[in-house]
Amino acid sequence: MDNDNPRLDTYYAELRQHHLGPLWNSIGRLMTHEPRPRAEAHLWRWSDVRRYVMESGTLVVPDRGGERRVIFFANPGFQELEPWGWGAMTNTLYAGVQLLLPGEKAPSHRHNQNAIRFVLEGRGAYTIVEGERIDMEPGDFLITPAGLWHDHVHAGTEPMLWFDCLDIPLLYQLGVMFFENYPDYNQPITKPSGYTEKRYQTSGLRPIQDHRTVYAPQAVFKWRSTQDALRRLAELEPDPYDGYGVEYVNPATGEAAGITIGAAMQLLPPGHHTQAHRHVHSTIYHVFRGSGYSVINGVRFAWHTGDTFVVPNWVWHEHHNTGTEDAYVFSTHDAPVMERLGLEREESYPDGYQPVTGEYPG
Amino acid sequence: MDNDNPRLDTYYAELRQHHLGPLWNSIGRLMTHEPRPRAEAHLWRWSDVRRYVMESGTLVVPDRGGERRVIFFANPGFQELEPWGWGAMTNTLYAGVQLLLPGEKAPSHRHNQNAIRFVLEGRGAYTIVEGERIDMEPGDFLITPAGLWHDHVHAGTEPMLWFDCLDIPLLYQLGVMFFENYPDYNQPITKPSGYTEKRYQTSGLRPIQDHRTVYAPQAVFKWRSTQDALRRLAELEPDPYDGYGVEYVNPATGEAAGITIGAAMQLLPPGHHTQAHRHVHSTIYHVFRGSGYSVINGVRFAWHTGDTFVVPNWVWHEHHNTGTEDAYVFSTHDAPVMERLGLEREESYPDGYQPVTGEYPG
Amino acid sequence: MDNDNPRLDTYYAELRQHHLGPLWNSIGRLMTHEPRPRAEAHLWRWSDVRRYVMESGTLVVPDRGGERRVIFFANPGFQELEPWGWGAMTNTLYAGVQLLLPGEKAPSHRHNQNAIRFVLEGRGAYTIVEGERIDMEPGDFLITPAGLWHDHVHAGTEPMLWFDCLDIPLLYQLGVMFFENYPDYNQPITKPSGYTEKRYQTSGLRPIQDHRTVYAPQAVFKWRSTQDALRRLAELEPDPYDGYGVEYVNPATGEAAGITIGAAMQLLPPGHHTQAHRHVHSTIYHVFRGSGYSVINGVRFAWHTGDTFVVPNWVWHEHHNTGTEDAYVFSTHDAPVMERLGLEREESYPDGYQPVTGEYPG
Amino acid sequence: MDNDNPRLDTYYAELRQHHLGPLWNSIGRLMTHEPRPRAEAHLWRWSDVRRYVMESGTLVVPDRGGERRVIFFANPGFQELEPWGWGAMTNTLYAGVQLLLPGEKAPSHRHNQNAIRFVLEGRGAYTIVEGERIDMEPGDFLITPAGLWHDHVHAGTEPMLWFDCLDIPLLYQLGVMFFENYPDYNQPITKPSGYTEKRYQTSGLRPIQDHRTVYAPQAVFKWRSTQDALRRLAELEPDPYDGYGVEYVNPATGEAAGITIGAAMQLLPPGHHTQAHRHVHSTIYHVFRGSGYSVINGVRFAWHTGDTFVVPNWVWHEHHNTGTEDAYVFSTHDAPVMERLGLEREESYPDGYQPVTGEYPG
Repeated sequence: MDNDNPRLDTYYAELRQHHLGPLWNSIGRLMTHEPRPRAEAHLWRWSDVRRYVMESGTLVVPDRGGERRVIFFANPGFQELEPWGWGAMTNTLYAGVQLLLPGEKAPSHRHNQNAIRFVLEGRGAYTIVEGERIDMEPGDFLITPAGLWHDHVHAGTEPMLWFDCLDIPLLYQLGVMFFENYPDYNQPITKPSGYTEKRYQTSGLRPIQDHRTVYAPQAVFKWRSTQDALRRLAELEPDPYDGYGVEYVNPATGEAAGITIGAAMQLLPPGHHTQAHRHVHSTIYHVFRGSGYSVINGVRFAWHTGDTFVVPNWVWHEHHNTGTEDAYVFSTHDAPVMERLGLEREESYPDGYQPVTGEYPG
Repeated sequence: MDNDNPRLDTYYAELRQHHLGPLWNSIGRLMTHEPRPRAEAHLWRWSDVRRYVMESGTLVVPDRGGERRVIFFANPGFQELEPWGWGAMTNTLYAGVQLLLPGEKAPSHRHNQNAIRFVLEGRGAYTIVEGERIDMEPGDFLITPAGLWHDHVHAGTEPMLWFDCLDIPLLYQLGVMFFENYPDYNQPITKPSGYTEKRYQTSGLRPIQDHRTVYAPQAVFKWRSTQDALRRLAELEPDPYDGYGVEYVNPATGEAAGITIGAAMQLLPPGHHTQAHRHVHSTIYHVFRGSGYSVINGVRFAWHTGDTFVVPNWVWHEHHNTGTEDAYVFSTHDAPVMERLGLEREESYPDGYQPVTGEYPG
Repeated sequence: MDNDNPRLDTYYAELRQHHLGPLWNSIGRLMTHEPRPRAEAHLWRWSDVRRYVMESGTLVVPDRGGERRVIFFANPGFQELEPWGWGAMTNTLYAGVQLLLPGEKAPSHRHNQNAIRFVLEGRGAYTIVEGERIDMEPGDFLITPAGLWHDHVHAGTEPMLWFDCLDIPLLYQLGVMFFENYPDYNQPITKPSGYTEKRYQTSGLRPIQDHRTVYAPQAVFKWRSTQDALRRLAELEPDPYDGYGVEYVNPATGEAAGITIGAAMQLLPPGHHTQAHRHVHSTIYHVFRGSGYSVINGVRFAWHTGDTFVVPNWVWHEHHNTGTEDAYVFSTHDAPVMERLGLEREESYPDGYQPVTGEYPG
Repeated sequence: MDNDNPRLDTYYAELRQHHLGPLWNSIGRLMTHEPRPRAEAHLWRWSDVRRYVMESGTLVVPDRGGERRVIFFANPGFQELEPWGWGAMTNTLYAGVQLLLPGEKAPSHRHNQNAIRFVLEGRGAYTIVEGERIDMEPGDFLITPAGLWHDHVHAGTEPMLWFDCLDIPLLYQLGVMFFENYPDYNQPITKPSGYTEKRYQTSGLRPIQDHRTVYAPQAVFKWRSTQDALRRLAELEPDPYDGYGVEYVNPATGEAAGITIGAAMQLLPPGHHTQAHRHVHSTIYHVFRGSGYSVINGVRFAWHTGDTFVVPNWVWHEHHNTGTEDAYVFSTHDAPVMERLGLEREESYPDGYQPVTGEYPG
């Protein structure tokens, strides 16, 4: 390319004026050799997150116009982009911590984003999804699939905290969001108490009536069952990269329970150190219980109960439980999106473990 | 058609000699207005079946050449057809009751037929499927999918009886059977004890390692879990045609655990009377516990614990528990075959219940 | 097994009386080491078939009760089985040659069997499928999918002959046939002339309106286009087992156009000799043009234009054009059934070509 | 919410400092009631585009580091976003016009973006895709699927122009791009001349060897065949929203030939005026031949041969050929992405046609 040609400057200015662009100047950024997601590896301390979430309880009263008392995680990689710079945890996923106070009700709505919830603290609140009341206890995993009415009600006596994950950045960037308020403030409960748990509790047993039901037949996955499942798994060989882990899946199809949002719970026994790998999909980790560290592209991120950290697309990562108790690490990811679009890849780290070249915070 | 034409007789004889045939004479039989399966509705009393199975224990010693001490059900509709006249329960399914005596071993083999087992009596025996030991207890449902090595070993002290169902008539009629003996008498156990139960027990939780496993990841479905599931279901609304029922499904795909062989367990509370319907697929029922009757195309078949009866394709049927205890009815069917071939249909009986026009035996 | 036990004879008699059977006596027939289909390799000479079909034109007048003037192929392997012993070409497929005389009309009906047609002789007749008139010319391939109304009308001046193939033996053996006559003798033509050809002619172009149409969007595949396609293919490398061949597929899904019935047309240039292989599915060949031979499990079957022969499941077969013109060989098969049921396998003959150990007729 | 609380300002500042955010302030932007894509309706005049593309031929010499002499369309809605603000035509699709001069070669590479080409002017150039030489003529549609090596060579004597469309913005926003240069400048041609055209030309005929080939079996769709197909379609009823149109599909699966990129060609006869509708997916239109206008959310965009315009997600649009010749309008869209993610919806405009409330440019 002849960079000295005096015409070039005016040429580029004219192109810009006509809403045109020269590929030869942009191709390096538009088509990188390896993924360069805007999301960065980052960790949020629970002490910070919890303090601000709890304070929001006194500062903010949710109403129909400004719904949901949630503090969301704002990945630093997006901070220059408004508005989703504030709402993206990875390039596809939003996450936050929601607070519902005793006696409060969050109004009913529906949208074409998928949502999952993971309960952190408190008892006595419930979500209503399409007429089914789902009681929330710490460690429970709930789904609120696209298109279904949902609202939250707190009938208990202590503050209720849960982790939300939605595919907001995906739909925001696709430019295809729909959102609708329910005609009334809350929807009626039309299904019997404990509906999902009475229908789906045992692996491989599906109510006969659900023979053709493939959309979100199981609304909740209880913590006690998940913990039991992980303890049984821990008697077998661990996965090299994930230790003992279970995915939350739709029992009618084997696909992710969260539809576009994958989710898993891992158990890492004391001293367990997984091997490093990387994959195209991105992952958000929330430490449900335990302490240890993860090495992400050579940087060590120490973590404790309640911390949240993010592993962007295609970065090496490994986990190490350095505590004396079993660590339980919850995660959500966008592998279902990558798989549906034919984009998923995975690679093992050649030597098993990465050399540690830095500490977070640096 | 001119039936008086004197040429016709020799014409037909010449056709036959040339291995040709006149459609106009056969179309009525080849293309019936509604299904006319060779299988007939029939019921076998457990007292008969059990007596002959137990007697086989003293009469017959299985060996490599004449494997498996099984008494199979021979639907009367097929009795003129050899050899599968002796081995067909419906047009696609074979069923029998297998006896394994303490100390016996059945040799290892594999085939392209799918098999399921449902345990009736005894403890202490186990099946080995592809290196996994699966202990058998009454009420357990096991799968032995096409292509996997399997054998049976009895390490207990009492006779062991179980119900077998295979898609033998389907493959026999298709003309595509493969069967292979394992090089040794039995295969080695290579998987840890309780492998399936440690991996698959909770609905919607799949070990992370199985992310891409779709072929038969769950080898056994334990009775206690199945019974618990049915009791929970019984707190909700029953299915009009099946009462409270669960299908045994592959947790990775939601398809039938038995691949081409569907299977279900139903609970009918005392007095429960399901409404009549019919469907293209055929069903074999085995009364695990209880007593009552079924009406099949107007004929009442009374049944008790251990009885086996068959509902051929496209016949009206309804079930009634006339006992004072919960009835548990196990069934296998060929709906997966009909669905894969685009043949399934279903119809409700207009008035809910059929008039009873006969008793079995008549 | 103690064959001398005097109880055995009465035991077996009692079993039979109770509609029960001893597996240890039957297992060798029920579960063979390799496929033993009832269908046999056989060849029918066109001179015979055509003579009898043409004679039926003077002997038989089709009417609503005895529809369709068709001479079907009756594989000798089934001759002891009535009635489908007369109507089975392979274990799943029926085939025959249909004659329609000028001025005749065959009444409209529909059924859950799939049908395909391949036109042999004559012009001026047409099939009506779901309101679409499809003109028939020699070499054309037509589909009449399950569930669609269809009838035939002859508006020309010469006898019209075509080859029919249906999945009658499959559905007969499954016991699930449905058949229904149209309220009137013929259905009205509701679609514009040349409907399919105006919509589907070019590979990879689908009318926008058909975006969600997956069931049988293309009703006819014209001979001239098929021949052109084969001639273009013949400029490239041949398939080792099939020479130059095309499958007739549904352009909306890539699945067999005939749904459960696969179909193909092969071109074998003079001297072309394909290598031997075998597969689980069975195949019916009709020599559209040319002469040569096929070796089927070591037996040489010489063939000429119009001959029909059958290659049962899992037998070695290879084809050789010994003429001086291109040979065109049409075939139908049941691979779609085997694939949907997970039963398909294929194997190459180790040495490429079989030694010829016999001649047909022997 | 108590907006007067003096703590709020410092609270928000602290949140931001901790990379946290308050959902109640952002939810209105993150979850809109209806899609608000960043992409805007816009039109580019061919006279402008062609002038700048041709000028690039004298200004820019492509090399390995700054490959491809392409002027891309930069939707004004993205202009504040760097770098893809310059490279996004809709929220998922990039488009540009590429120039290759006689004697030039563009180097070989591959990437996980999908690409399609539509040829505008010139003859004599060809693309090599995975060893297949594909000659390019005006109106031809070509695919360059993700993961396949491709390069361009110009063996002719006149400038060659074509329209490119890739899913760059989708992958850029997902953060998952891979790109790799071929070891040599160009790859060798390994497939026979006219490979695709000899294999895929007739609807519903697939080479037997391709029985299990589902990934991109057809590399090119020739203009003459496409035009013929449209003229045949034009003898039937038009689609209310698209006139006479064909989708370019993979003949092995019926899915979009461009995998994540849908593409279609429409014929609008003189005077033809389609009805208005809207859908979640976005569309880029390039007027191959003809003149008329489209009404997009009430604004009239007049267009002539060579113009390119964009219809963002979920906006009403209708087309009107006001010329005296048939108009041919090529388009690409992201419906495959929306469908794979479960996001597609469509709606008809209630009154058929929109009132025109503005002119472009306004």
